[in-house]
Amino acid sequence: MAASSLHILGLAGSLRARSYNRALLRAARELAPDGVEIETFDLAPIPLYNADLDTDERRPEAVTRLKEAITAADAVLLVSPEYNYGVPGVMKNALDWASRPGFRSPMAYKPTGIMGASAGASGTMRGQEQLKLNLLGMIAHVFPHPGVAVTRAADKFDDELNLVDEATRKFVRQYLEAFAGWVRRVQRPAEAMARG
Amino acid sequence: MAASSLHILGLAGSLRARSYNRALLRAARELAPDGVEIETFDLAPIPLYNADLDTDERRPEAVTRLKEAITAADAVLLVSPEYNYGVPGVMKNALDWASRPGFRSPMAYKPTGIMGASAGASGTMRGQEQLKLNLLGMIAHVFPHPGVAVTRAADKFDDELNLVDEATRKFVRQYLEAFAGWVRRVQRPAEAMARG
Repeated sequence: MAASSLHILGLAGSLRARSYNRALLRAARELAPDGVEIETFDLAPIPLYNADLDTDERRPEAVTRLKEAITAADAVLLVSPEYNYGVPGVMKNALDWASRPGFRSPMAYKPTGIMGASAGASGTMRGQEQLKLNLLGMIAHVFPHPGVAVTRAADKFDDELNLVDEATRKFVRQYLEAFAGWVRRVQRPAEAMARG
Repeated sequence: MAASSLHILGLAGSLRARSYNRALLRAARELAPDGVEIETFDLAPIPLYNADLDTDERRPEAVTRLKEAITAADAVLLVSPEYNYGVPGVMKNALDWASRPGFRSPMAYKPTGIMGASAGASGTMRGQEQLKLNLLGMIAHVFPHPGVAVTRAADKFDDELNLVDEATRKFVRQYLEAFAGWVRRVQRPAEAMARG
């Protein structure tokens, strides 16, 4: 039986045009297994969170579009740099909007994977640890697997920001296969159990 | 000898008009010891971080004003809610701008204190832990002291958002006295050592 098709929403935590993380998200789109489609949503138009605007009457239109896109997706893939050992304000701010209202937000129980790339040796690993706690705080369903952490990104991407390092491409592909399999299991536990 | 006067820059991590954290920052201004002045800087006009705009030619004017205000201050006081067990995107985004360029940013070695208030039982304690790591990531000088964590804020502030709980007022006052004393020591180590 063919696996069901999956629709994943990819969010990049950097707004820089030549960001390695935006490039990594593009690479993930190409490397996604058959039946898995990764759509991207640009966080640039998301304003700073303000609870006074977080009402059906006043909510900024870009925020409504983000929340609808997360709701419509089978899973979310966060691809982000690490700033100051933590999650960039750009990414955290988007998640702050998306995590409201608590317990019944678009992020509640949403299967979520994490990737990151850095020019140095950290590969965004410290930021990913903070992000996992943030995701658990919004009761997202965090993929229990080491996130993709691309170190020394300048050696892994070419000048056009194509991911050219074969070992990294293989790792990203394997991560996405494992992620897709897990999303299918946690998304439809009853059906999966019925199949054995 | 009278203690030197101190100028502290206070930043609130919530943009909501009736925010307990904005109210706590106002209370801190009132409760500051003699010779300590707390100025506030509103984070609402700070745009999302974008490294492509982080140049002397393109940097948004509000960011330049924030960085100049931090540079001019003897210390920074961050008063913030906790969103999703972490630092609000609003606060983190401002710090992401202020922490550039690394190692010689306005936040480098800047004495920094932390306060927070929440409606529930956490008092922003989880967010403060993430924030401390972020501050160390930008080599800020983190006040080695438990931050002020105001729990059950609705019981501590009146309807006009005045901090009326006496025990909390005393704790805030004591924190600010200890913070000011520490800022004077770490700011002028040679002079302090000469005085014995």
